[in-house]
Amino acid sequence: MGSLTPLVKNGWYIGAWSDEIGCTLMQRWIVGRPVCFYRLQDGTVNAIEDRCPHRKYPLSLGRLDGDVIECNYHGYRIDGSGGCVGVAEQSDRPKASVHRFPLVERDGVVWIWPGDPELADPALLPDTSWLTDPGWTHVHGVVPLKARQLLLVENLLDLTHETFLHPSSIGNAAVAATPIDVTSEGDRVSFTRHMVGIEAPPFYEKSMGLTSPIDRWQDGDFYAPGVFQLNMRLAPTGTEEPEGFHMKVIYGMTPATETETHDFFALGRDYLIDDEKLSEFQLQQQLAVMKEDVDALEIQEVMVASEAPGARESSIRSDVAGLRGRRLLEKMAAREAAVAAR
Amino acid sequence: MGSLTPLVKNGWYIGAWSDEIGCTLMQRWIVGRPVCFYRLQDGTVNAIEDRCPHRKYPLSLGRLDGDVIECNYHGYRIDGSGGCVGVAEQSDRPKASVHRFPLVERDGVVWIWPGDPELADPALLPDTSWLTDPGWTHVHGVVPLKARQLLLVENLLDLTHETFLHPSSIGNAAVAATPIDVTSEGDRVSFTRHMVGIEAPPFYEKSMGLTSPIDRWQDGDFYAPGVFQLNMRLAPTGTEEPEGFHMKVIYGMTPATETETHDFFALGRDYLIDDEKLSEFQLQQQLAVMKEDVDALEIQEVMVASEAPGARESSIRSDVAGLRGRRLLEKMAAREAAVAAR
Amino acid sequence: MGSLTPLVKNGWYIGAWSDEIGCTLMQRWIVGRPVCFYRLQDGTVNAIEDRCPHRKYPLSLGRLDGDVIECNYHGYRIDGSGGCVGVAEQSDRPKASVHRFPLVERDGVVWIWPGDPELADPALLPDTSWLTDPGWTHVHGVVPLKARQLLLVENLLDLTHETFLHPSSIGNAAVAATPIDVTSEGDRVSFTRHMVGIEAPPFYEKSMGLTSPIDRWQDGDFYAPGVFQLNMRLAPTGTEEPEGFHMKVIYGMTPATETETHDFFALGRDYLIDDEKLSEFQLQQQLAVMKEDVDALEIQEVMVASEAPGARESSIRSDVAGLRGRRLLEKMAAREAAVAAR
Repeated sequence: MGSLTPLVKNGWYIGAWSDEIGCTLMQRWIVGRPVCFYRLQDGTVNAIEDRCPHRKYPLSLGRLDGDVIECNYHGYRIDGSGGCVGVAEQSDRPKASVHRFPLVERDGVVWIWPGDPELADPALLPDTSWLTDPGWTHVHGVVPLKARQLLLVENLLDLTHETFLHPSSIGNAAVAATPIDVTSEGDRVSFTRHMVGIEAPPFYEKSMGLTSPIDRWQDGDFYAPGVFQLNMRLAPTGTEEPEGFHMKVIYGMTPATETETHDFFALGRDYLIDDEKLSEFQLQQQLAVMKEDVDALEIQEVMVASEAPGARESSIRSDVAGLRGRRLLEKMAAREAAVAAR
Repeated sequence: MGSLTPLVKNGWYIGAWSDEIGCTLMQRWIVGRPVCFYRLQDGTVNAIEDRCPHRKYPLSLGRLDGDVIECNYHGYRIDGSGGCVGVAEQSDRPKASVHRFPLVERDGVVWIWPGDPELADPALLPDTSWLTDPGWTHVHGVVPLKARQLLLVENLLDLTHETFLHPSSIGNAAVAATPIDVTSEGDRVSFTRHMVGIEAPPFYEKSMGLTSPIDRWQDGDFYAPGVFQLNMRLAPTGTEEPEGFHMKVIYGMTPATETETHDFFALGRDYLIDDEKLSEFQLQQQLAVMKEDVDALEIQEVMVASEAPGARESSIRSDVAGLRGRRLLEKMAAREAAVAAR
Repeated sequence: MGSLTPLVKNGWYIGAWSDEIGCTLMQRWIVGRPVCFYRLQDGTVNAIEDRCPHRKYPLSLGRLDGDVIECNYHGYRIDGSGGCVGVAEQSDRPKASVHRFPLVERDGVVWIWPGDPELADPALLPDTSWLTDPGWTHVHGVVPLKARQLLLVENLLDLTHETFLHPSSIGNAAVAATPIDVTSEGDRVSFTRHMVGIEAPPFYEKSMGLTSPIDRWQDGDFYAPGVFQLNMRLAPTGTEEPEGFHMKVIYGMTPATETETHDFFALGRDYLIDDEKLSEFQLQQQLAVMKEDVDALEIQEVMVASEAPGARESSIRSDVAGLRGRRLLEKMAAREAAVAAR
């Protein structure tokens, strides 16, 4: 794991939440490039490379004039397509443009495709319709992580870490003790962990009023290169589906650079959906859990980055999903490198 | 522009203002080397490599004893020529010396030649006699810049950025709208921009009491590798020379390292030369304008340094002076590399 | 001196003072590797590589359960030998282990051998029995240094720097003026400096009540790669041994990384050994002196690291011990590189 795997460009990543993007310009690094996010006058989200084609000053520091950004260094005017439409210094238009990124806005998520636009097929997007389903509510946000994306992917694909890293909230001995079933197909890796008759972890006791014993399901899907969804069910032991409390989490694991990652999250539930105090509690709890992960992954990044090349690693059965995720990312990166080398 | 151009060593750079150098030792990095500046007992400025020839401790942390610096680590004694004249540990003198840099002090400027001393010809110095002309007064200083020197050179050779970056002080639409005439000869690139019948920018309204329309001239000379002078004239439209307000600026763009630059400035005027309040106002205004430039160039440095090698760049007619300046620096650097490779 | 000498692995370094290690886990980097120090239940000190064999999370952030560390990320259980003894996720034991470092605890010092364990012979340890001799008392500690180890080695092997860097405490003109006798044998370099009829430096005036003239002896032994002992004697001039004040210092110069060093020290005396106020005074004085050294060496590191490769260096007779120490380290590093290349 020591050396860095090249970042996968051809894939839909979460670029932003819809409510982050308004009439002001926002810079965010995505897969190694600076991106300028904003909305066109018709409300459409737009994203272009955040370097003026002239002298590379960030367009996001410019002035938005209708759909046109005027660069604040020498006044290049760039429209929504990324093309230069004029400049104050001369009457003829400079032949210049910047990359416009394929975007899809759906269910409150702004998806971005950092790679070859020809391949940006919206059909590849995971189903996120629960985010706008009236039977559900959710909280969401984004947390910065100073670690390579792979460490976050493997963190989420092996939830046994909840037992050790999150014992005061969502973890207890049952998670590590219960094996997973793993399946994979194409660019997806899935696992299921069904815990039956276990003790309720503190977080679920508090937010659902559950008392032990309970059943707890964790069904996760990793959509390579950068999305993870977790379907959870908690209920008094023996309760039959569809009874019980259901929760879902989406994580958008979007590389900023080779060693920095945006950790997007949305956490939803299908119960007490009008209880705003509960939403606020769940948001704070989620951020507290993510801080434990971020602290751990940033330390892990230091340990991994400083290790001698070729150092050995030990894996066990609970790593199967994580290792499949890693191989998938390596395969996708290798495929892209081969295309680039042609 | 992505990759760094090697720094030019053979050229006169501003090393300091005369009033910065006194009886104490001062370290300043110049073109990648630490330099120890001080005055000899006869008042002459002196500059030697700021590494003791013994164990490389900065001589500038030593003790000045007459014209001799005693290193504060093991006591090597270095005279004004850079030669070791003795050491407390033994009676025989170590055969050791450090580089002494050619210097010229003139008009309150301490010029330094970081390259081959054989080539350090004072005849190459630009004329700065206005700095001591009794008909003029000026303010001066130096500002640190965390960006490669080239970005500052191109900033000054394309003043159309005033329109966008400095609209509250020295810029308005007329600057970008008025083309320049560019000439070059040897290691010099010159441009003239004569704006006629334009609105007065805020700074000139305040400091000269000018009301629109005015004429505004900007005549710039870049003396490669590191000096820029700007002659400015502002006057009510139609006023004939030599009437009107005249201002001059010298910028010393002295690389500290490959990605850090000293931004020396002197701003002078030929009117109200005894008005100290006006001088103070002009100094504060100049520092405010330079902060806008420094902030922009430091961001530009990040964007340029992080760009993929071989990325394209768009240029327009207002870039002609800047591009000639860039080519000149590249040519000088290549010439020096060829000599070094012999 | 510009380029870094590879760190020597085969040698006893001070890893910690005995009183630093208790029932909690402590991370310390030693010769480029993270080490987890702790005590086993029988009181024995133990040190293993501080990366879990599973996903490289620091074991020092884990939970100590008897002699077993449970990793706080996924629960690998590592015993005192560094071997994995189980994991909560499965009943069969992962075949995994981490390096256990040879240690010797003696006289309050925890010695560590970062290299080949086969070569870790306790007979190679220097004699430190005075640390537990009832006729002596000492103060000790460790100070971080952001500089390569070699700079500290040369600092201690050339004490003439006391004259210039420590004039307000332990240095005066006599140190630089008095030559040393140097001998060496195997991996040891020794020097003696006997100053006779000199003025008493401020520190010794205060802590011993000595008045000038005095005799002062400095007899140093460098045990490559990382230990230095200094035997000092101070007495009114003409006093015969064994009369007089005797002091000893051990320095453990343990590389943390290539450019960071742990500066362990113990300072002892054979007089007024029950005077705790004097001990406290000597500790504060020692820390003040070391701060002067650390400040100087950290600046020297910058100057050395930024120098052009192949820059020349001047040496004098007082450098003989330091240069022998440097050659010794270079020879040991070259020997290890040759073995590694086989």
